[in-house]
Amino acid sequence: MSDLWKKTATDVVALLKAGEVSPGELLDVLRARIEAVDGAVNALPTLCWDRARAAAERADRDSVLAGLPVAIKDLAPVAGVRTTFGSPIFADNVPAHSDYVVERLEERGGTVYAKSNTPEFGAGANTFNPVFGITRNPWDTRLSAAGSSGGSAVALATGTAWLAHGSDLGGSLRTPAGFNAVVGLRPSPGLVPTGPDLLNYQNLAVEGPMGRTVADVALMLDAMCGIDPRDPRSFAPPVPSYAGALNEPPGKLRVAWTPDLGTTVVDPEIRFVCAEAVAGFSGLGSIVEEACPDFAGAYDCFQTLRAVFFAGRAAPLLKAHRDKLKPDVIWNIEKGLALTADDIGRAERERTALYRRVAAFMGDYDILACPVMQARPYPVERTYVEEIDGRRMASYIDWIAITFSVTLTGLPALSLPCGFTEDGLPVGLQLVGRHRGEAALLAAAAQLESLLGLSARLPIDPVVRH
Amino acid sequence: MSDLWKKTATDVVALLKAGEVSPGELLDVLRARIEAVDGAVNALPTLCWDRARAAAERADRDSVLAGLPVAIKDLAPVAGVRTTFGSPIFADNVPAHSDYVVERLEERGGTVYAKSNTPEFGAGANTFNPVFGITRNPWDTRLSAAGSSGGSAVALATGTAWLAHGSDLGGSLRTPAGFNAVVGLRPSPGLVPTGPDLLNYQNLAVEGPMGRTVADVALMLDAMCGIDPRDPRSFAPPVPSYAGALNEPPGKLRVAWTPDLGTTVVDPEIRFVCAEAVAGFSGLGSIVEEACPDFAGAYDCFQTLRAVFFAGRAAPLLKAHRDKLKPDVIWNIEKGLALTADDIGRAERERTALYRRVAAFMGDYDILACPVMQARPYPVERTYVEEIDGRRMASYIDWIAITFSVTLTGLPALSLPCGFTEDGLPVGLQLVGRHRGEAALLAAAAQLESLLGLSARLPIDPVVRH
Repeated sequence: MSDLWKKTATDVVALLKAGEVSPGELLDVLRARIEAVDGAVNALPTLCWDRARAAAERADRDSVLAGLPVAIKDLAPVAGVRTTFGSPIFADNVPAHSDYVVERLEERGGTVYAKSNTPEFGAGANTFNPVFGITRNPWDTRLSAAGSSGGSAVALATGTAWLAHGSDLGGSLRTPAGFNAVVGLRPSPGLVPTGPDLLNYQNLAVEGPMGRTVADVALMLDAMCGIDPRDPRSFAPPVPSYAGALNEPPGKLRVAWTPDLGTTVVDPEIRFVCAEAVAGFSGLGSIVEEACPDFAGAYDCFQTLRAVFFAGRAAPLLKAHRDKLKPDVIWNIEKGLALTADDIGRAERERTALYRRVAAFMGDYDILACPVMQARPYPVERTYVEEIDGRRMASYIDWIAITFSVTLTGLPALSLPCGFTEDGLPVGLQLVGRHRGEAALLAAAAQLESLLGLSARLPIDPVVRH
Repeated sequence: MSDLWKKTATDVVALLKAGEVSPGELLDVLRARIEAVDGAVNALPTLCWDRARAAAERADRDSVLAGLPVAIKDLAPVAGVRTTFGSPIFADNVPAHSDYVVERLEERGGTVYAKSNTPEFGAGANTFNPVFGITRNPWDTRLSAAGSSGGSAVALATGTAWLAHGSDLGGSLRTPAGFNAVVGLRPSPGLVPTGPDLLNYQNLAVEGPMGRTVADVALMLDAMCGIDPRDPRSFAPPVPSYAGALNEPPGKLRVAWTPDLGTTVVDPEIRFVCAEAVAGFSGLGSIVEEACPDFAGAYDCFQTLRAVFFAGRAAPLLKAHRDKLKPDVIWNIEKGLALTADDIGRAERERTALYRRVAAFMGDYDILACPVMQARPYPVERTYVEEIDGRRMASYIDWIAITFSVTLTGLPALSLPCGFTEDGLPVGLQLVGRHRGEAALLAAAAQLESLLGLSARLPIDPVVRH
């Protein structure tokens, strides 16, 4: 079997552009690899080879992705392909139209061949649902892959995808990247146009790229970003190419490091591994200081605004299909519906005040760095992390406060593999960039990535344990 | 007295750049003009000559505005200058810091010399408040200047400003432009960074430029737009210069014309004047068709989301200063506070559905054209228009549904003087552009402006009637 599956997306796209490999051959490679390893992890439960073959034949070698196969998270409809949102309500749903982001990836040369697993409606940071079951962590299949873009992260880690689409409300592009040692970028709301959706104007949930390297993520961002008149939030990127921006060295950076945002509980070993990694910036001539803006109030603010989002998007669903929704989703919609306009106004004012503090802080730093995960990969049967370092978590999303607090700011945030626990489980670093600063963030992350040298360890064969 | 006040902003900036006139001389010109005419209309109740002189001396001839004086609506704080928001609560307020947009205008060579009058907190489309009284329409001082950017529109019309700042929630950059025969542009939310504010994430209220010609408005937009990391909504403009974009002819346009958006009542004479004007596009080789997207539901949706905005921004003010707020403002805040999360979610879903219809429609047209005003300028003592063509209005903002319905879409919208009623009162046309299409919208408006030739009638001496 060809070892093309081990290469980076950037390298494979170069081969496609040079005509040294065809999109169809890449589909063969993936098919064989999926047959070999996906059974152990269940990352890509839906495959669409016929559709992919037809697209591969039409692929334009001069497009951004030049025919490269891409996996799409099962929260995004793909025309003619089973799209379940991880929900029994949509277990047999075959949409007639693709989401905007899927259309864009295809226009720019992506070949869709698989849907990646997700929790029901993306709710929760572990990947399991009643339609397809559990997605497992390839570093130890007894453990959670995290979520909600868990299927995408695991496909990348196991070499069944070169690039994968994900989405992120509270951390869903970042936490699974951390758990599986891949890279996920949460872009600024509006940089990657999304929809159609019931809520066009919300600015907490975004879609974005995942890959095995920072350069691969930059390449995929180039294939996803830009104005789409159907998404009123969408805007033109401030640089001509994110992949191209990596060619310019980032220069000396001012990096603020915090082990916990000052507000969260983080597993001590994770703090230690991340602190060691971020110190690498110093060796590159940058300045690393322990400092953090004041994230007080972010917890309540996010819980409120997330509930507003659930209520706004899913109240009609609750009315129509209450019996087929999981309790966490019902809880979240009802929490939202119980809010008053005054509660919502207060949360919006808190969010604004938080942004003002963070924006002022980021005037002094290029990057805010912290762990991307508060807890180590945990037994996959548990639906969420219930306790960290002796502290009980109050809700099913409390253990990702370190990512959802950053969501509120709308700043770009990247999850970078930064090391391993003593027993060999991945640890990820969250790097938060400046307003509209995706290019600088990617450049800084690529610099540290190159120093740490961890991306060479991927992809892996699943470590099957029982 | 110099007749520099009659020139366009574009021409005066050219003189500044050529060194043929100094910013200080322009202040002298304005001072004399204000003394001569502002007493009849009360457009600029607060002046700050000392501050302006100091700024004029520092002005950079190579900046966008090269030292040109600009008027700022009294809803935007200017450091060291009385800023009242038209409210007795802030009658003696002298802020230490300017709003972001004021800082930006100053950085790009604007010299702030005056605050323009506004209704209390900008609420309502007529310009009066208990601090400064009534602003009058210079075409007939018995009539309303409209609002809420009424002071800015009247200053432009009477030659006491070359460029003026305004803001727009439901039509406040557009309606007063229509009433006074000047040009106002409501930009896409995020194109002109705004704040600091209690609500950074709302996307209904925007700030934008007003001028006597389309080219002047494009020039001022260049001095206001772009990324400010303090405003999370702000994005980079998709063109290097809006004024520069006017040099390229717009080509043949597809223009959709509707006399009323299919949902509003419009004074028959206004419909007639606008229809005549928009037909001008045909003479320019463009296609004009009567067509309109479905705006059903926009009325309730806007009333709900506007109330959410009032509640979110002003609930603390109501608590602290209820006795000093006008009844319309109290009504609006309380209407917002009484909403449920389900009401708000439903309105957000309606807004999304409306945008989807309008975006699909705008795939077939470059411009949607309609009257910018449903009613003619009315007696200034009335706080709002109570009846149009025999139909009673249910609230104080119903008579601007033709602008607030467009607000919901977030599309750029420009108010262009397009003719006069039989008794000589201005009529304005609303031109709605495509998503992020400010440059194309301005180019189309400049083409029609040039055909109609009305901007040559400005500025005027106030027509004082009792």
